[in-house]
Amino acid sequence: MGFVSVLGFAHQLIGQRVQPGDAAIDATLGNGVDTVFLAKLVGRRGRVYGFDIQQQALDQTKMRLEKELPDASSSVHMSLCSHALMEAAVPEDRHGKVAAVTFNLGYLPGADPATITKQESTLPALEAALRLLRKGGIVTIVLYSGHDGGSEEAAAVEAWAAQLPLAAYQVLRYQFMNTSAHAPYLLALEKR
Amino acid sequence: MGFVSVLGFAHQLIGQRVQPGDAAIDATLGNGVDTVFLAKLVGRRGRVYGFDIQQQALDQTKMRLEKELPDASSSVHMSLCSHALMEAAVPEDRHGKVAAVTFNLGYLPGADPATITKQESTLPALEAALRLLRKGGIVTIVLYSGHDGGSEEAAAVEAWAAQLPLAAYQVLRYQFMNTSAHAPYLLALEKR
Repeated sequence: MGFVSVLGFAHQLIGQRVQPGDAAIDATLGNGVDTVFLAKLVGRRGRVYGFDIQQQALDQTKMRLEKELPDASSSVHMSLCSHALMEAAVPEDRHGKVAAVTFNLGYLPGADPATITKQESTLPALEAALRLLRKGGIVTIVLYSGHDGGSEEAAAVEAWAAQLPLAAYQVLRYQFMNTSAHAPYLLALEKR
Repeated sequence: MGFVSVLGFAHQLIGQRVQPGDAAIDATLGNGVDTVFLAKLVGRRGRVYGFDIQQQALDQTKMRLEKELPDASSSVHMSLCSHALMEAAVPEDRHGKVAAVTFNLGYLPGADPATITKQESTLPALEAALRLLRKGGIVTIVLYSGHDGGSEEAAAVEAWAAQLPLAAYQVLRYQFMNTSAHAPYLLALEKR
């Protein structure tokens, strides 16, 4: 039957923790897969906040939403800015109440491969995500190390995750071992 | 809700792949937890083959079986020998048909901590397990690195697992990141 894929496992963990009406964040809109998934989970009473620094990502996400979830347009709020600024775009009454935040690091397939996430903004964005998260909420981070700068970013995120206090966060790694050294893998954090 | 524990996740993966009537192997009887779990899955028509080099492990497993699964005594076959010899104890008509093999490395809690699994026998036992396994079958390996010799064994098992051909096996790691460096973690292998 095969093991569940990295993205599939991330979505399983999120699906167990997000309820209709919740707020969720897609920190890296990319092609919109996570946004559509989150929008389905939170439903029309919920809200998804999405971020990307490339207009192309917002456009792709909008197209995917219109096709796969046409009713959800009012529940998804997208911002063309760095995910490090996510706290400013999420209403204050949602701070500390966000159920899930997804990160899909690296570059946007099909776009300029020189435009990549970097630890200088990724780590502040992760810190912001933890502040926005509610207890029992989850952050998923899909890491890639195949592109230039990718392994440095992955190492920085791993070091950051490994030092989180166990009393406040549980951090899980889900990774295929005998694939390319550059295959994506998952870190998942739950706030206790 | 917390993430599923290492042992709990191993049992989820096994439970998805083992059917009543199947053959399964507990390569390290220890305190019998895996044997009881496997015996419940395979049922009275199935068979569990268990191995340990310490009589204490066989005694503990027998006691646990009598308490938790008294009907299963005839379906569990235990051998006081190295798991490297497992092929000799499994009937030939079961070779290539085993649904699951569990390894719980390190030492038996409460017994002599100098008696530990070592890569010299663990790696041949893992190779034997792969030969016995059916397509779609699973090997789970819980690794400990906290005791003397543990980190060497864990590194050897990881290196062995990482070089398995992707066309024949899928290898997954499930590990908590911000715990003690010595916390147990899981490698799971599925035969394609």
